[in-house]
Amino acid sequence: MSIFYKNLTATKAFAKLKQLEQPAHLSTLLTPERIRTCSIPLGGGLTYNYAAKRFDSRVLEVLQQLADEQQVIEKYRSLLDGEIMNTGENRMVLHHLLRGQLGKDVIHQGKNLREFYRKEQERFYAFAEAVHQGTIRSSTGKPFTHIVQIGIGGSDLGPRALYLALKNIKEVQGQLKMNALFLSNVDPDDASEILSRIDPETTLFILVSKSGTTQETLTNEAFVLRRVEGIKNVGIVPKKHIVAVTSETSPMAKSAEYLETFFIDDFIGGRYSSTSAVGGVVLSLAFGKETFEDLLQGAHEADAKALQPEILQNPSLLDALFGVYERNVLGYPCTAILPYSQALFRFPAHLQQLDMESNGKRVNRFGETIDYPTGPIVFGEPGTNGQHSFYQLLHQGTDIVPLQFIGFLRSQRGEDIEYQGSTSQQKLNANLAAQITAFARGKTSMDHNKEFPGNRPSSLIYGEQLTARALGALLAHYENKVMFQGFLWNINSFDQEGVQLGKTLASAALAGNREDSVLSTYAGLLGVR
Amino acid sequence: MSIFYKNLTATKAFAKLKQLEQPAHLSTLLTPERIRTCSIPLGGGLTYNYAAKRFDSRVLEVLQQLADEQQVIEKYRSLLDGEIMNTGENRMVLHHLLRGQLGKDVIHQGKNLREFYRKEQERFYAFAEAVHQGTIRSSTGKPFTHIVQIGIGGSDLGPRALYLALKNIKEVQGQLKMNALFLSNVDPDDASEILSRIDPETTLFILVSKSGTTQETLTNEAFVLRRVEGIKNVGIVPKKHIVAVTSETSPMAKSAEYLETFFIDDFIGGRYSSTSAVGGVVLSLAFGKETFEDLLQGAHEADAKALQPEILQNPSLLDALFGVYERNVLGYPCTAILPYSQALFRFPAHLQQLDMESNGKRVNRFGETIDYPTGPIVFGEPGTNGQHSFYQLLHQGTDIVPLQFIGFLRSQRGEDIEYQGSTSQQKLNANLAAQITAFARGKTSMDHNKEFPGNRPSSLIYGEQLTARALGALLAHYENKVMFQGFLWNINSFDQEGVQLGKTLASAALAGNREDSVLSTYAGLLGVR
Repeated sequence: MSIFYKNLTATKAFAKLKQLEQPAHLSTLLTPERIRTCSIPLGGGLTYNYAAKRFDSRVLEVLQQLADEQQVIEKYRSLLDGEIMNTGENRMVLHHLLRGQLGKDVIHQGKNLREFYRKEQERFYAFAEAVHQGTIRSSTGKPFTHIVQIGIGGSDLGPRALYLALKNIKEVQGQLKMNALFLSNVDPDDASEILSRIDPETTLFILVSKSGTTQETLTNEAFVLRRVEGIKNVGIVPKKHIVAVTSETSPMAKSAEYLETFFIDDFIGGRYSSTSAVGGVVLSLAFGKETFEDLLQGAHEADAKALQPEILQNPSLLDALFGVYERNVLGYPCTAILPYSQALFRFPAHLQQLDMESNGKRVNRFGETIDYPTGPIVFGEPGTNGQHSFYQLLHQGTDIVPLQFIGFLRSQRGEDIEYQGSTSQQKLNANLAAQITAFARGKTSMDHNKEFPGNRPSSLIYGEQLTARALGALLAHYENKVMFQGFLWNINSFDQEGVQLGKTLASAALAGNREDSVLSTYAGLLGVR
Repeated sequence: MSIFYKNLTATKAFAKLKQLEQPAHLSTLLTPERIRTCSIPLGGGLTYNYAAKRFDSRVLEVLQQLADEQQVIEKYRSLLDGEIMNTGENRMVLHHLLRGQLGKDVIHQGKNLREFYRKEQERFYAFAEAVHQGTIRSSTGKPFTHIVQIGIGGSDLGPRALYLALKNIKEVQGQLKMNALFLSNVDPDDASEILSRIDPETTLFILVSKSGTTQETLTNEAFVLRRVEGIKNVGIVPKKHIVAVTSETSPMAKSAEYLETFFIDDFIGGRYSSTSAVGGVVLSLAFGKETFEDLLQGAHEADAKALQPEILQNPSLLDALFGVYERNVLGYPCTAILPYSQALFRFPAHLQQLDMESNGKRVNRFGETIDYPTGPIVFGEPGTNGQHSFYQLLHQGTDIVPLQFIGFLRSQRGEDIEYQGSTSQQKLNANLAAQITAFARGKTSMDHNKEFPGNRPSSLIYGEQLTARALGALLAHYENKVMFQGFLWNINSFDQEGVQLGKTLASAALAGNREDSVLSTYAGLLGVR
C-alpha cells in the first residue's frame, strides 16, 4: 500500500470532524454503563478508560476515518520496518526495536540492529551484575556504592523519572541494589550539591551523551573528574570511575579511558531513549537486570497494542485522536498529567519533554509552514497535591484543560493506616474518583462563585500496582501517542531544530562576541564576561 | 477617594489597548539601549528587566491608564489598611502585614494584628533557638535532629520551595541547623518513604493546617503518630514530637497535647502564607531567625515598591499589566517560569499554585460570570534543563508562551570549575542571555524547519546572588503581581471555591455513597470500597 503524507487540514475526515455538532455535556454523557464499557487494555496490566472524554458515536466514527485517512498504522509499521521517518535528520526511528521485534529485520550497514541493541543490553546487564558482585570496582579497589548519572534532557528526565518511580517498590522488595542521583544542570550548584552528598571514590558515574558533545554534560564530567582527581589514594585513575553511554561515532566513544562504554545510535532519539542504554545502564545498576527486562516487556506490550487499526482496540491511537480533537476542534491549548501516585512525581516532567519537544513544531514533515495548532503545553503534578494547588483553575478557570489521570489500586510500599474509617490508599483513590466525576459533571449553584461548569474532559489509566512492567507500558503508551499525533498533524516528531539557535548564541556569548550587541548587553548584565 | 470595581472590559483603557496597533517585532525593538533603560529595582537587590516584553510607548501609556482607571494602587492601599478584600469569604487579606507595616494599624476584635503576627514570630524564633540549643528535646530526652513539615497546598509548596532555595547557601555558610523534609500527599507511599529516611524519635514534626481539618494532613499526622507510638522507649509521648501551626479557632488549636502551637489567622491565605508561621517555623528551625528575618525584609522591600503609582517604578504592577496585555490582547493562554538556578527547582510549582489558584476564576468579585480570560496556565523548570526539554515548543511551536526568566550573577555554593575557557556559572548565564535573545529575535532560514519566528516576549529578574533577602523579594513580587492582576480582572484572588466540589465527592466516595452512580462506579474501579 502506498503511503501518503498530508496535512491534517487537507483530510476529508478533519473537515467532517469540524462540522460535527459538539457532543452533549459530559454530565449527560457520563453514565456507569459508559464507564464500564469505555475501557481498553493498554499492556503491562494497565487499562485506558476514556469514558470521561468528550465524544459520542459520531465523533468516534470520524476519528476512525481520520486515523485511516492519515494511514497512521501503516506509518507506524513503516517506522518499525526501518523507513526513514525522521526526515529532517535523514534517520530511522527505532526505539521500539529496543523492546522487541514488531516489524521486519532492520539491517544498517550490514548490522542487524535488533541484535546490536540486544547485545548492548546483555553487556550492561553483565556489567551491572559484576558491579553488584564486587568484581568490578573503583580504580582504588573499593566497591561502588552509589551511581550518579550525568546527562541532560533525554539523558536525564526519562531515566530519572523511571528510577524514582521504581525506587520505593524495589526498596521494599529488597531489590534496591544501588542508590542513584542525577546531575544535569550546568549550574555549578547542581554539581557541587550532588558531590557533597556522595563519596566520589565509591561512586560510579554514568556519562550520557549520544553526540558526545553536549556542553552541560561535558562540563559536569570535568566538574566530577576534578573531585575524583582530588582523592588522596594511591593508584586513582579518575576516568575509571566513569562509564560512558554514547554513539559509536562520538568523540566519547573514541576514548579508551572510561571504565566501560555502552552504545546507542542515531536512531534512538534522546527523549525516546529511556529503554536504551541511556536508561538501561542506570536502572540495571540500581535494580538489576530483571527489573529492566520487566520494563521492556511492558513497553513491548504497549507497542504491540498500538498496531491495532481499530481505534477502540488501540489506546495510544485513541488517546492521540482525542488529543487532536481537543486541540484542533475544541481549541484547548494545554493538557495536564495528573498521577495519583507520589512515585510518579517526575513523570510529568518527562512527558513534558516527550510531547513538547516532539510535537512543538510549526512546519510539516516537508518543511512547509502549517496553519493549525500542533503539540499542546504539557504540565502536571501528582494528586492529591495538585488538588490543593492549580486545580482551582482547572475547575473554575476561563480555559478548559483536558486531564490525564493515572492511578493504581495498591500502593508500592504496602505500609498504610486506617484513619477515620479508610486507608490512605482508599482516600487517595476516592479523591481520584471524585475529581474525574467533578470535572465531568460540574455543579450548578445559585451562587455563581460556587458553580462548576463541568464538561472538563479527562482520561484515566489505571492498574493494580506501579510495577516495572506497568511503568514500561505507561512510558510506551505516551511515546506512541505522541508518535500518532505527529502522523495526524503531518509533522516530524523526531527532530528538534528549535534547540539549535540558543546553543549557537550561548557559544557566541561565551566567546565574548561583541558584534551581537543585544546578546553581549544581556551577557554583560549577567556577568558572563 | 472612592474606589470603584469594574470589569476589565468595562474600562476605557482596555478598549483603547485592544485598538492599538501591535508593537513592532521584537527583533526591531530590542536594542542595547532598551536593555539598559528598561530596568526597575524590585527590592532585595533584584532588578526587573522588561526590555524583551512586547511594548512600545503607546502600549505603556495605555497600560498606565488602565492601572489608574482600575485604581490598583488604591485597592492595594485598602488591602493594606484592612479592608475586606476577600469578599467571598468576608475576610481581610493581611499577608503583607507579616513583613511590616505599610498601611494603617489593623485592629480586629481589639487586637492589633501586626503585633499579633510579630508576637508569633518572636515565639517561633525563641522555640527554634531552644531546639538548636537543645533545651527543647523529644519526649524521650533526645535532641531533635530533623524536621518533617506535614501540610499540603499552601502549607507545603511555598515553604518547601523556600527551604530548597536556601538550603545550599546556608549549608556552605555553616548555617544549616537542621534538615527538613516535607510530607504532603495522602498517598501512603509518601509518608512511608519519608519515615523510612528519618528516625522518628529525633524528628520534630510540624503539622500545618489553618483550618485544622485538612484530610490529607490529619491522615499523615495519624500515619506519623503510629510510627512514633511504636518507638520502644520509656516515657514516649507521641504528640510531644509535633508542633502545630494553625488558626486559634481550629480544632487543632484546642489540643493541649502538642509540644507547641503557633498561630496564623483567617487573613493569611494558604498560598500567601509562606512568610507567616506556616513557612516561618520550618525556616527558622532549618536556618535560624536571622535568615527568616532577611526573607521578611526582602519581601517588605518588594511590598513597598509595589505602592508606586507610576508603573515604570513599580515592577510588580508593570509585570501584572504585561501579563494582562499578553493574556487579553495578544491572546496567550500560558506563561512559563524559567529560573536559571537549580536552587529554584521547586519555585515554579509554588508560583503555579499562587497564580492558578488565585486567578483561575470565571466570576468577578461580585459573583457575576465574566466573558474574558483570567489567570493563565503557569508551568516551569530550571534552565538549562528546560532548554533540552520543552524549549523546542517555546521556540518553534504554534503557540506563543511569554517567558519569565530569573538569574543570578554568582552561584550559591561558590564551587566552580573553568572548562573550555569559562566557568559553569558563566555557561549558565551565557545560556540565559542567549535564550532571551533567541526568543525575541528569532532567525530566518531558507529551510523553514530551521527558522525561528522570534517575537516571543520575556522578562528577566536578576540579582547578585540568591540570598534569603533576594528570595523574599522574589516571592513578594509574584504575590503582588498576582494581586494586581486580580484587581485588573476584577476578580477575588483570595478565595478558592473551586476546590470544594472534589472534597465533597471524595468524602461521599469514602462513605460508600451508592446514590451517585458515576462516582461509585469510578470508586469501584479504583478499589475504594
